[in-house]
Amino acid sequence: MIVILKPNSGDKEIEQVISSLKHYDLNFNISKGSHTTIIGLVGDTAKVDSEKLETNPVVEKIMIVSEPFKKANRKFHPEPTVIDINGRKIGGKEIAVIAGPCSVETKEQIISVAKAVKKSGAMFLRGGAFKPRTSPYSFQGLEAEGLELLKLAQEETGLPIVTEIMSPRHLEIFEQNVDVIQIGARNMQNFDLLKEVGRTKKPILLKRGLSSTIEEWLMAAEYIMAGGNNNVILCERGIRTFETYTRNTLDISAIPAVKRLSHLPVIVDPSHATGLSRMVEPLAKAAIAAGADGIIIEVHNNPEAALCDGPQSITPAQFDGLMKKLGKYAELEGRTL
Amino acid sequence: MIVILKPNSGDKEIEQVISSLKHYDLNFNISKGSHTTIIGLVGDTAKVDSEKLETNPVVEKIMIVSEPFKKANRKFHPEPTVIDINGRKIGGKEIAVIAGPCSVETKEQIISVAKAVKKSGAMFLRGGAFKPRTSPYSFQGLEAEGLELLKLAQEETGLPIVTEIMSPRHLEIFEQNVDVIQIGARNMQNFDLLKEVGRTKKPILLKRGLSSTIEEWLMAAEYIMAGGNNNVILCERGIRTFETYTRNTLDISAIPAVKRLSHLPVIVDPSHATGLSRMVEPLAKAAIAAGADGIIIEVHNNPEAALCDGPQSITPAQFDGLMKKLGKYAELEGRTL
Amino acid sequence: MIVILKPNSGDKEIEQVISSLKHYDLNFNISKGSHTTIIGLVGDTAKVDSEKLETNPVVEKIMIVSEPFKKANRKFHPEPTVIDINGRKIGGKEIAVIAGPCSVETKEQIISVAKAVKKSGAMFLRGGAFKPRTSPYSFQGLEAEGLELLKLAQEETGLPIVTEIMSPRHLEIFEQNVDVIQIGARNMQNFDLLKEVGRTKKPILLKRGLSSTIEEWLMAAEYIMAGGNNNVILCERGIRTFETYTRNTLDISAIPAVKRLSHLPVIVDPSHATGLSRMVEPLAKAAIAAGADGIIIEVHNNPEAALCDGPQSITPAQFDGLMKKLGKYAELEGRTL
Amino acid sequence: MIVILKPNSGDKEIEQVISSLKHYDLNFNISKGSHTTIIGLVGDTAKVDSEKLETNPVVEKIMIVSEPFKKANRKFHPEPTVIDINGRKIGGKEIAVIAGPCSVETKEQIISVAKAVKKSGAMFLRGGAFKPRTSPYSFQGLEAEGLELLKLAQEETGLPIVTEIMSPRHLEIFEQNVDVIQIGARNMQNFDLLKEVGRTKKPILLKRGLSSTIEEWLMAAEYIMAGGNNNVILCERGIRTFETYTRNTLDISAIPAVKRLSHLPVIVDPSHATGLSRMVEPLAKAAIAAGADGIIIEVHNNPEAALCDGPQSITPAQFDGLMKKLGKYAELEGRTL
Repeated sequence: MIVILKPNSGDKEIEQVISSLKHYDLNFNISKGSHTTIIGLVGDTAKVDSEKLETNPVVEKIMIVSEPFKKANRKFHPEPTVIDINGRKIGGKEIAVIAGPCSVETKEQIISVAKAVKKSGAMFLRGGAFKPRTSPYSFQGLEAEGLELLKLAQEETGLPIVTEIMSPRHLEIFEQNVDVIQIGARNMQNFDLLKEVGRTKKPILLKRGLSSTIEEWLMAAEYIMAGGNNNVILCERGIRTFETYTRNTLDISAIPAVKRLSHLPVIVDPSHATGLSRMVEPLAKAAIAAGADGIIIEVHNNPEAALCDGPQSITPAQFDGLMKKLGKYAELEGRTL
Repeated sequence: MIVILKPNSGDKEIEQVISSLKHYDLNFNISKGSHTTIIGLVGDTAKVDSEKLETNPVVEKIMIVSEPFKKANRKFHPEPTVIDINGRKIGGKEIAVIAGPCSVETKEQIISVAKAVKKSGAMFLRGGAFKPRTSPYSFQGLEAEGLELLKLAQEETGLPIVTEIMSPRHLEIFEQNVDVIQIGARNMQNFDLLKEVGRTKKPILLKRGLSSTIEEWLMAAEYIMAGGNNNVILCERGIRTFETYTRNTLDISAIPAVKRLSHLPVIVDPSHATGLSRMVEPLAKAAIAAGADGIIIEVHNNPEAALCDGPQSITPAQFDGLMKKLGKYAELEGRTL
Repeated sequence: MIVILKPNSGDKEIEQVISSLKHYDLNFNISKGSHTTIIGLVGDTAKVDSEKLETNPVVEKIMIVSEPFKKANRKFHPEPTVIDINGRKIGGKEIAVIAGPCSVETKEQIISVAKAVKKSGAMFLRGGAFKPRTSPYSFQGLEAEGLELLKLAQEETGLPIVTEIMSPRHLEIFEQNVDVIQIGARNMQNFDLLKEVGRTKKPILLKRGLSSTIEEWLMAAEYIMAGGNNNVILCERGIRTFETYTRNTLDISAIPAVKRLSHLPVIVDPSHATGLSRMVEPLAKAAIAAGADGIIIEVHNNPEAALCDGPQSITPAQFDGLMKKLGKYAELEGRTL
Repeated sequence: MIVILKPNSGDKEIEQVISSLKHYDLNFNISKGSHTTIIGLVGDTAKVDSEKLETNPVVEKIMIVSEPFKKANRKFHPEPTVIDINGRKIGGKEIAVIAGPCSVETKEQIISVAKAVKKSGAMFLRGGAFKPRTSPYSFQGLEAEGLELLKLAQEETGLPIVTEIMSPRHLEIFEQNVDVIQIGARNMQNFDLLKEVGRTKKPILLKRGLSSTIEEWLMAAEYIMAGGNNNVILCERGIRTFETYTRNTLDISAIPAVKRLSHLPVIVDPSHATGLSRMVEPLAKAAIAAGADGIIIEVHNNPEAALCDGPQSITPAQFDGLMKKLGKYAELEGRTL
């Protein structure tokens, strides 16, 4: 941590800063420039309250040198984390494919989609039971009944279930029924929910917030890991930009960025990234080319009749064609799919 | 709602769209241009599922003409809403001032700040008990104990309490202890929490999300109102922009915008808007000049020792000076403070 | 174009709008809803001044249905444009590779880089002579001398030259010495410069502005084409977002978006997109997987000693390895490189 | 400047960095932490090429401590700059008001607006002759003829003229005819134009770019000042955000921020900030309350017939009413208007 003093600070001001930090076990490096004096703090600066330090009237500003995340940090955990879900792995050589409808609608729908995506090679089934919708008047999901239907689809196909939690009140039924618990983009900084899922051992699929930086995203992962749950899968799903042609903008460079900053696996959601089914294919290919550990894709047997997110869903037939193409991209990356 | 058909659409495509909407009670206006055919839907289009319509393969895109919020909409409720909290009003002629520390820290601290801000003219006491922090390693608030201390401060001063809720699990103790329940910026689209507070009658202070549009913010208010709670106070607290000199950017034009779109009162948080105590004064003045119904300000007896948000807190003495100045701005606006 | 009238408008207001538009050759479709009346304009609405219309006191707002760009619009020019530069094509089956240093520094440097990139398969040589720098105190390029050195490199290798123009005053020497004239991101809306290059027949490489929408970018292309120069190559080079880990964020979905909206070729600059040499490879692969017609890459014989943009430049040896890998991605897309 | 070394760097790496900087006159402060080694550079670091340093393979990243602008920096010029334009001052006690139409349209129009705004107390006349328009098909201004008409209006009223330059080719006629040369938001980083106006002595009104940071804006001012022209007036005119209700978002906190970072005067354009005439009043008041040195307002005798920007223009009568109100806000700030 670097402390920059206000202009014209002298020994007295330096002394004041150092003395305010004396209860930490730190060393100090003083640099006096012609216009600026800076103090470098050496030691375990993670414990220093930078906000408090910034309030010191002699301090101009603080610069943080080290990343604020520890458990998610690759520096302290150089090996990539591979997460095991009923024997299926995310983060290893195989590229994980999660597919299914935006919402669980009926038993027939979810089972037929589950069978179809399994046949085409999907490793996991996704499907929304509790739905985060911008409008209170939109379909909010089948809720508990949706979880039941997902469970039936799992029994039928063996595919592990990925679905979103929206409230700590539902944690118990999620722990019983779900294989991977998803935290949606809008809840990425719902810290209470992060703490709650941190107390379980279930794998957590943590979507990046709509306007979050990578650092904030990794700090959200850190919340879960600080609670004792290291099974975090990061999911880039597009960020908000000024572009209106697509609903969001896929941050393709977040993939290599996260792989370098963290040991956690990172997957990509090309369906939500743009909201346009015709863009799923080019973005899914690009995601694999850029090093993603997996993709999560919305597949609906009848997108036109879907209760939500129809415009971004592809059909089982399109998904089947896509999987064949993606296999070749995985191969070029030395991976399987 | 306007439906724009794909290029080269003809009567068959028009017929298909109309027939897909026949179960709604709508009229249709067809405009055939040289390159573009559009269908105008007339009637209660709020019920039409625009996403589903957009999936129709003959549809190029949908344009929404009406605002998606109803209960929060000034069109259907032309009179401004005035919210009454223990006899004190927000949204009327008087500009409401809410003041207090970022976090409740000790009994002495909260009582002394409460007394000071009351003396200077504050109408409400703010103070965080449950704190949303970016890092799991930062001080998370005194939690339930913080609510107790706020209650003591209220008994001592009579000031109603404004404090943030972070989980639906705490709703009961908030209903018992708190006068205005705050929903923080990071939970603006925590739809589960919005629904829960919508079931109470407590006034809700709804902060605008960090990167939310005004429409999304009003839709969050709509969630609360759809549950039956019309006591919503909107709070502009700065949005995320590319500027790094200030923590956020106060969207001063949101004040007149919200006043026109909605009947709900809107207040401004100049402390969080920039994160810099020296900017509280110019922004508080600007907020009143732009028509805000109130301001919420962080005041700490010893900002340098504050457990959070010290850099943006002002002292009771500064607050007292500020109140004197603001009174004159309120007067120019034909209001009191 | 859709005109939405203010609430409670009636026949008088409708009449007023229509009469204000009677000098255009238009038809009108009126939709009267319970709360909203809208007028659809049918005909050549491109000539209607929407801003003026918006000032009409009975008008609430205007919605533009058709894209405002004509010559760049794929609707009116369904075939993709292939641009021929001394017999080398951009926009056809072959993926164009443009490579070279950020700045031309010395004769030896530019000739050695040109030879190296040519050997590895580059089709064009890039190199900055006039440099747009954020600071007036940074190296501003060799200017006219840089163009001379590029010309020498071209004589030596036969590679056509791509370099940036910064002022209309230099247009004449660019026309004489350069094969493709680049308009940089910061000049994307330097309308005077766009008009000037629109008067030439030289191919123009038009970079997307840092915070521009795709529509604004295509409108900048339209400026050039409106002047009579249809040889426009679009270049996505990353947009500004809140992410700070990378300098910009590559908008990978802009590639399929532009291919659909326009017939112009679109290439990608993975070097400027992130500012990090280690990200050039994953993003170049992703660009090809997403359908780009070419890539432009910074290659420097000694990045550590580069006078600008060293952190994002790769070495000739790295470039050679990259080209081998990219060839396989091009093949999967049914293209050559 | 702070140099952070890659993890696991030792004395050899430290030595390498220091030796690469030995041709500068610097001192070095070394801080070895458990995971991070940093080197503080002390001395005139403005000359150090940070980009080059960042390319050094042992360097992880660079942090810049000092502001990169010198001549615009308040640290080195504590007194506020007051700019004198024919005896009228910007930056002093009086708040400067610049008013006039978006575009000069006819002799009658500009003279009548000039007379009206003068009567209401405006100090300067604005009016566009060369217009930056997003579409090549929109009205581009009367160009040279527009300058002639402005000159006539000046002769008639004595008001100094403020108008925008779009090309270095027009500099000579601007120097002859114009009192304050405006650089528009889209040209804020048109470095060639900045250099050209830096060679004159004319006051320059420099608008902030649509998505520029304050630092980039001050660096654009630095370009002009580095050329020898210290007469720079900064103009905040709204930045691009996700909000669509207003065209841009006025960054009201930029006013106190710029006043602290720089000695240059800063004015506000409430007309372009939102694009809505009904928001001019609240934002103009807020600008003065936040400490602006002036405002620039679009006034048109007949906004409905304006050739551009009608929706944001107010009438002379509205302007007159506004001026009366603003006078009271100026008074509260201890200023005149």
